[in-house]
Order: sequence, then C-alpha cells, then structure tokens
Amino acid sequence: MNMYDIIEKKKHGQSLTYDEIGYFIKGYTDGTIPDYQASALMMAIYFKGMDYRETVDLTLHMRDSGDVVDLSGIEGIKVDKHSTGGVGDKTSLVLSPMLASCGLKVAKMSGRALGHTGGTIDKLEAIKGFRVELSPEEFMNIVNNTGIAIIAQSGEIAPADKKLYALRDVTATVDNLSLIASSIMSKKLAGGSDIICLDVKTGSGAFMQTVEDSKALAKAMVDVGNGAGKKVSAIISDMDQPLGYAVGNSTELHEVVNSLKGNGPEDLMEVVYTLGSCILTDSGIAGNDVEARKMMEETISSGKALEKFCEFISAQGGDTQFVNDLSLLPLGEITKDIIAPSDGYISRIDCKQIGMASLASGAGRTVKEDPIDFSAGIIFNKKVGSSVKKGDVIAKIYSSDENKALAALARAEEAIEYSLEEPVRNPIIYGIVR
Amino acid sequence: MNMYDIIEKKKHGQSLTYDEIGYFIKGYTDGTIPDYQASALMMAIYFKGMDYRETVDLTLHMRDSGDVVDLSGIEGIKVDKHSTGGVGDKTSLVLSPMLASCGLKVAKMSGRALGHTGGTIDKLEAIKGFRVELSPEEFMNIVNNTGIAIIAQSGEIAPADKKLYALRDVTATVDNLSLIASSIMSKKLAGGSDIICLDVKTGSGAFMQTVEDSKALAKAMVDVGNGAGKKVSAIISDMDQPLGYAVGNSTELHEVVNSLKGNGPEDLMEVVYTLGSCILTDSGIAGNDVEARKMMEETISSGKALEKFCEFISAQGGDTQFVNDLSLLPLGEITKDIIAPSDGYISRIDCKQIGMASLASGAGRTVKEDPIDFSAGIIFNKKVGSSVKKGDVIAKIYSSDENKALAALARAEEAIEYSLEEPVRNPIIYGIVR
Repeated sequence: MNMYDIIEKKKHGQSLTYDEIGYFIKGYTDGTIPDYQASALMMAIYFKGMDYRETVDLTLHMRDSGDVVDLSGIEGIKVDKHSTGGVGDKTSLVLSPMLASCGLKVAKMSGRALGHTGGTIDKLEAIKGFRVELSPEEFMNIVNNTGIAIIAQSGEIAPADKKLYALRDVTATVDNLSLIASSIMSKKLAGGSDIICLDVKTGSGAFMQTVEDSKALAKAMVDVGNGAGKKVSAIISDMDQPLGYAVGNSTELHEVVNSLKGNGPEDLMEVVYTLGSCILTDSGIAGNDVEARKMMEETISSGKALEKFCEFISAQGGDTQFVNDLSLLPLGEITKDIIAPSDGYISRIDCKQIGMASLASGAGRTVKEDPIDFSAGIIFNKKVGSSVKKGDVIAKIYSSDENKALAALARAEEAIEYSLEEPVRNPIIYGIVR
Repeated sequence: MNMYDIIEKKKHGQSLTYDEIGYFIKGYTDGTIPDYQASALMMAIYFKGMDYRETVDLTLHMRDSGDVVDLSGIEGIKVDKHSTGGVGDKTSLVLSPMLASCGLKVAKMSGRALGHTGGTIDKLEAIKGFRVELSPEEFMNIVNNTGIAIIAQSGEIAPADKKLYALRDVTATVDNLSLIASSIMSKKLAGGSDIICLDVKTGSGAFMQTVEDSKALAKAMVDVGNGAGKKVSAIISDMDQPLGYAVGNSTELHEVVNSLKGNGPEDLMEVVYTLGSCILTDSGIAGNDVEARKMMEETISSGKALEKFCEFISAQGGDTQFVNDLSLLPLGEITKDIIAPSDGYISRIDCKQIGMASLASGAGRTVKEDPIDFSAGIIFNKKVGSSVKKGDVIAKIYSSDENKALAALARAEEAIEYSLEEPVRNPIIYGIVR
C-alpha cells in the first residue's frame, strides 16, 4: 500500500478500502505521509466524492486517531446534543437539566468561544467556583449522582481531524460534504454517548448558510453516526439572528436561569424542546414527540429542571446563589444602547456580526489565549420582526471597558437593519432528520 | 492575490490570469508557496484543465523562472530539434550537419542519458577531446563559424518546472496534457531558437505509449510553442523498437558516421528527413518538402554533411580521425550474441527493455552520478519484421565487464519476441503537426 496509489485510485473515482483510509489517516497523523500528498487526495475527494461506507470509515479512523471517552462506568442511557456553533446558543445549559430530570445521563465535553461563536465552557466559568476540569473519576461520579457533568475538552480528541482540517482550510478543500461530516462526527463520536442529537445551525451566523446545505449536512452526519453504531438524529434550526435575547457569558446565564424558571424566549425553548424530543424518544423514555414535550414542560413547571441545574453546578464546585439573585452574576458597568432611528420593524440582525460585536465587547476571543470578560455581552429587547418606535432601545451593550463597549456598539449597530413593512420571519426549526 | 483564491478559482473551473499563474510560479519557485497548496492546484488542474492561453502563460512563466539562452549574437536563422526521448536516437547528430550545410544555424543544448533513454551529450563525450562545456562566447563563435555547436545544459533551465514536476510525480498529477506540454516546452523554449521541430516519440520506449496520446501531446506543444512566438512543428515517430541498429554511445557514433556517408538505416533516415523538411520549409530555405528532401540528400551525396560534422567536432576540440577509421572509437571487448532460437520472424523488440539492457551493459546511468562505459551498448543485425533462421545472430552486446554483458544479454533476450508469421510493421512516421 502506498499513498501515490491511493491518490491515483481516488482520482479515477474508485472507492478507497477501510485499510487504505486507515493507512492514510495513520500516516498523515504521524507525519510519514506529507501534507502535499494529503492535499492532493483532499482535492481528488472534492471532485470525486466519497461514498457512504468510505465516509463512515474515514470518521472512525479519525475518531480513533486520539482519545475516545469511555463512559461505560456510567449507569443508564448516555445522551448528548451537539451544535454546529452559533451566537447566543445556551441550549445545552437549558436542555441538560431537563433531560437529567427525565432520568437520562448527560456526560458532556464542551468547547470554548472562538471568533464569533460562543462556548458553553466559558459561560460556566462565569459562575464563581465552577470547575470545568475534573478527573475521569470525579466526572463519572458526578454524572452517576446528579445526571449531568459538563467539562472542557481534555486529552487529544481526533488529532487526525485537527491536522487535516488545518490543511483543508488553506488548500480550498473544506467544502465537501463527506469531509465536513466526517470532520464533525469524528469529534462527536469520541464523546462516547449512545444517543446524540445534532443541532445543525443555518443562516448568517452558521457554518452552512443555506437551508439546503444544512439539511444535506444534517443527513450526512446522521448517516455517518448511525453507520458508526450510534443512534443519531439532527434538527436544522435558524441561526440567521442570535438565539434568544442574550449574547455573552453572564448575560446568557441570566437567560438560562429565566428559561429554567419558565420564562424562556420562544425561539430558544423551541430549539430545546425539539432537540429534547428527539433524544427522549430515541432513548425510549417517551413514546412520541407529544409525550416527550409534556415530560419536558413538566420538568420546568415543577421546578425539577432548575433544581437539577443547581445540583449540577454545586457538584462541580459552583456557587448557586446567583440562581435566586441574578445580580450576583453582574453585567458590565459600562453600557451602550442601540436606539431605533425611526418607527418601523427590525428586518435583519446579522448573526455573525452580532457575534463579532459581542467579541468586541470583551465576551469572546480572537485567539485561544485571549482572556474573557464574563460580564460583557449584549442583551436584546427586540428580535427580527419586532415593531419599533423611534428612540426605542433595541439592545444594550455591556462591558467593563469604554473603548470595547464603543467598538461593540458600532459593530452591532451595523448588524441591525430596519424596514417600514413587517418582514417575513424565518421558521425556528427547518427540519428534523432521524 | 493569494494562493487560496487561485486554487478556489481553478477548482470552480475558471481560467487563471497571466498574473495569477505568474504569482503561483514565482512563489512556488522561491518557496513562499508551500508544496501542499501547489499539489492541491495541480489536482484541480487535472480535473478542470487549463485553456490554451493559460497553458502558454504557464509555459512562459516556467521558462522565465531560470536562465533563457540569448542567441542574438548568432547571425542567420537559429533552428533546433527536440526529441521527447528514446532508445538509439542519434537523430540530432545526423540532422544537425545536414541543416548547417544548408545554411541554417544549430545552437543546441542537449541532455545526458538517464534510465532507459540515451543522451546526445554522452555520445559526443565518447569522442576523444570533445568538450561539451563552452563559454557563451566560444559557443557563439563556433556556431557563427561552423553552423553547429552542441553543449551540455548549463545554468538553471526552468527550475520552476523541475520543482513542480518532482511534486506532480509523487501526487499523481502528471497525466494532464496542459501540464505535460508546458513542462516540456518551458525547457525547449529556454533554448532560444527561432524555429523548432519536435520529435514526439510513440510506443514502448516513449513517454506516450499510444499514437493518439502522442498526437494530442504534439498538437498541444506546437500550439504552446506558437503561442510563445516561435515557429514550432512536430512529427510523431515510432519508438516501439530502437531507432536504427545501434544503441549506446560509441556504437551509435559508428552509425552516425555511416549515415552521413550515405549508409543510414531506413527508419533513422526517414525521421531525419521528416524533421529536416519541417525545419527547412519553416525557415524558408526550401519551398516545399520535396525540395527540402532533395537539398538534404545532396548534403549526403556530396559529402558536405560529413565535412560539416568533422568541422563541428574539431571546433569543439574533438579528434575526427575516427570518421575515417571507426576502430579508433572502440567497442567493448566482451561481447555476447543474441541468437535466434528457431526459424521465423522478429515480432517485437521491447524498446524500453532494450534501453535498460544497454544501461545494464554499462552504456547508461541509473542516477546522474553514474560513470558511463562509452564502449558498451548493443548493435542489432535485425529489426522487427526481419526473417530469421535458427542460429542467426540477432544482436551483439558490447561491454568491458563480463557481469554487465551477461546482465545486458539476459535483459535483451527477454525483450525480443519471435513469430512464425510475418508481423505487421509499424509506420516510421505517424503524422506531422505544423
């Protein structure tokens, strides 16, 4: 077996075997296969594609190039949800306590903010005392006792994907569905859960900007996940404006607490319920979506979900007093208002630009090493389609730095567009793939 | 301008501009563009092709990446012929004196043997005293005075092509006509002649093994050459068996002298006359092919070509006594005969294998640094289609080393096939592109 023949084979549109894909991934990861052969193969795959079996094989080899989490020490059904990344996306923090209240186990590794997208781990670190790093034993114990633990990615998850993605990124070979699906799924599958629901975002703040592309990606990832022996479903949800009203870290935690108290924004809760329905029915806890939704609503109205949230925060060392007094999780003292310039409607809130505005306020990071201002961010009073009167406060920027607040204001103001006529609103959920 | 956008553009089948191709070639040659981006572009070109204008531009940029010979100091019409490489191909040494006798100027850089193909420079070095390295001034003077000089490639000819070809060779991106044509032509055009005739070989000893591929390559190279402002034609000639009877260095020089004395093998002389006709008519020396052929035959029958050959050898320091006494150019003392095993016909002489047999006898080199045994080689008595009687000597191996002679014998014996029925002979010339 040699790399030249593998490139030549794919160039002529033939399927690569499990062993050939493994030879490539192993050799590329350990450096015996050079970048220039890998990029030639990626370009050949761009043109000739990979069939379903090849895509599954690539995913499995990339998953196995690094650490794969072993959750066998956890009793019960291990479930997980994964988003393709968005702005204002606090879904995990609302949904996880609801699922745990229904008896499922959420043993989750989450990421950090980078660029315009936020990260669950940063939001959790805004809570005093909360520890995002646990030993494997602590992690297992907390999940077994409370039903939830959420930790930062540790160890080396799918290093083959990391190296290959960096190469694809500079050789114009990102945009192939098999390569995108295997890249995402190799990391998701390393998480070790039995049942996974993927939240594929679509729109101006998402990796995939059209609904059609997002559906195709969702389908490809579900197929790959099922091919890898997991029960995987996906929803396609709107990310053409931020999810909910809050963007940032403490700002979003406020919204999480309010949501668990029954005052969640419509779009956020719709995404939460849709993801939860897939997971509860796939795991056999609920017989159908109607039953699943009732169970979840009951966790909110009974206060069980909020109680579970506090249990989980405490178990990981966090101080839960903020749940009863949100002022204990302060927002930036420097604020700037975005004011409606005239009467009309909000016709567009460019999601990526709002993510960049939040970053500018201090809530995000440009490179991995940047520190985060947990108190910074944006809270909207309006969404796309809201009617506004001249002088209304559309949104408030929070920061602890005057210059950052001004930079965020300028960027956010540019992201918001107005119209005289009421705009057509996007659906919240575009589809479900299971 | 950046390399990512260039790859992306070609990936989508768009034409690259002159400046974009120049940016790539310059950056790749100086190392600022990495191999992995270059190989991704090569694969995109494999799938999406390059149009005529792009191919010319690539050729010009690769030519200009290194030294371009300036022949402006030579009076008259500068002509050249180039072969795509073959076995027993001594065409240049027969044709050049004929063209110089007709008043044309042949200022030629030639290559050395590598692998199964021979090189004109090695053949000339078999002549006592002959210098293949001349100062630019000497080179110009000799061409101006005698009409011919042939030197080894010096300086750096098309380093961009050298680097790019090495990359294509390991990334399965060799087989694209635009890339092959630009690779060959970038080097040919660096030679500086006004009129060029390309000898595109076809068959078992050639780079292109089918007539169709060879014709397509010839057409592509002629188009590129004309696009680069030169008058370029091409012939497609048979290389399915060695050209003429002699393979090696001194062996081939014997055949050159005999050819210039009017005793040239039919196939060799047909290739010489066809190439010469293209050059003499393109340069306006002859009005048509019939006239051109008459002029060339006259250079042989009058002895002028042989005289010109001696002038040229002398001018470059060579001892010309061997022209009158071929024993002064000795052949290897150890000889092995290839004997016909039964009555019948020779049905095939695998050209590449004979090239490898010649190499094994000591006449060639596997790597650039190998020394050459000028006395080694093979002389055939028969060609494909010749009738043979059991016991006839088909060919004689010459070497100065018993083991090498035996290795050459074994390889050559395997290359020759026999049949009871007279085989169909290949044409000598498959076509002319002008």
